[in-house]
Amino acid sequence: MPDDKKRDVILDTTGDAVQLAKTLIRSAQSASIATIEPGTGWPIATRVGVSTDVDGAPIILISRLAVHTGALLADPRCSLLVGYPGKGDPLAHPRVSIQCEAREVERDSDEHMRLDARYLAQQPKAQLYSGLGDFRYFRLEPKSASLNAGFGRAYALKREDIID
Amino acid sequence: MPDDKKRDVILDTTGDAVQLAKTLIRSAQSASIATIEPGTGWPIATRVGVSTDVDGAPIILISRLAVHTGALLADPRCSLLVGYPGKGDPLAHPRVSIQCEAREVERDSDEHMRLDARYLAQQPKAQLYSGLGDFRYFRLEPKSASLNAGFGRAYALKREDIID
Repeated sequence: MPDDKKRDVILDTTGDAVQLAKTLIRSAQSASIATIEPGTGWPIATRVGVSTDVDGAPIILISRLAVHTGALLADPRCSLLVGYPGKGDPLAHPRVSIQCEAREVERDSDEHMRLDARYLAQQPKAQLYSGLGDFRYFRLEPKSASLNAGFGRAYALKREDIID
Repeated sequence: MPDDKKRDVILDTTGDAVQLAKTLIRSAQSASIATIEPGTGWPIATRVGVSTDVDGAPIILISRLAVHTGALLADPRCSLLVGYPGKGDPLAHPRVSIQCEAREVERDSDEHMRLDARYLAQQPKAQLYSGLGDFRYFRLEPKSASLNAGFGRAYALKREDIID
């Protein structure tokens, strides 16, 4: 009964767990994103630069020349992994996987200007390419998230837990 | 013509590019893995501990209680992202996405003993859980890889480039 076993290892959500997940999301400057390759359905893991919108939803700045962008335009479903491994056992360090639907932000819209200002305030070096014609912001709308706070400490979070 | 544009940004594979990819793969202690959620087809991004087999193929040590394990048992297609972001712009740091098919290594087989010795030599702290009943090694059989050696420096690698 693997389903029963799996449920057993998910801890009850606490305020500390929610706070840890929010901190990981809001402090991340990069993340790994899982997308689906158009045509083949093969998963793709790539790195993206990340910031957050006012409510805590992840914002990514990606190039139309990159594989993840074509993948997201064909199928907006994705998963964003934030949290960096540090010294020692990499699995002892906390991380969050966020299941999201991606939405491209229209260039030169009010939303674009707001997100551009927020993104560049957190990542000033992205000014080198944020204005290039092939770059776009995507807002990642969280559906749910899975926090792993360290070995054996797993939490299943709802959208409401991580979005203000 | 997005396909033509995409081809234009892939550089010709060089010896330096191959060496960089191999170094990133062989020195990684953790990685992000993209898998496919059974039933929904949603991509999942999670962290895994990683080492390499003698020929350079990635080896991961994962728990049957983790979502990626159930996903890989249902559909072995995955993508492994290795390479750590450092200081400054996270996209300036090299990384490799490896498209792989995962194969579970039979417990207590000769292959298991070889991989266990290699893994624990690189990651001694994994001794805390490598022997637990729910942990298994999976060998990830590379099909192809994509090296991003830094902003705008993309290479398409073949299996033969990264496997000895």
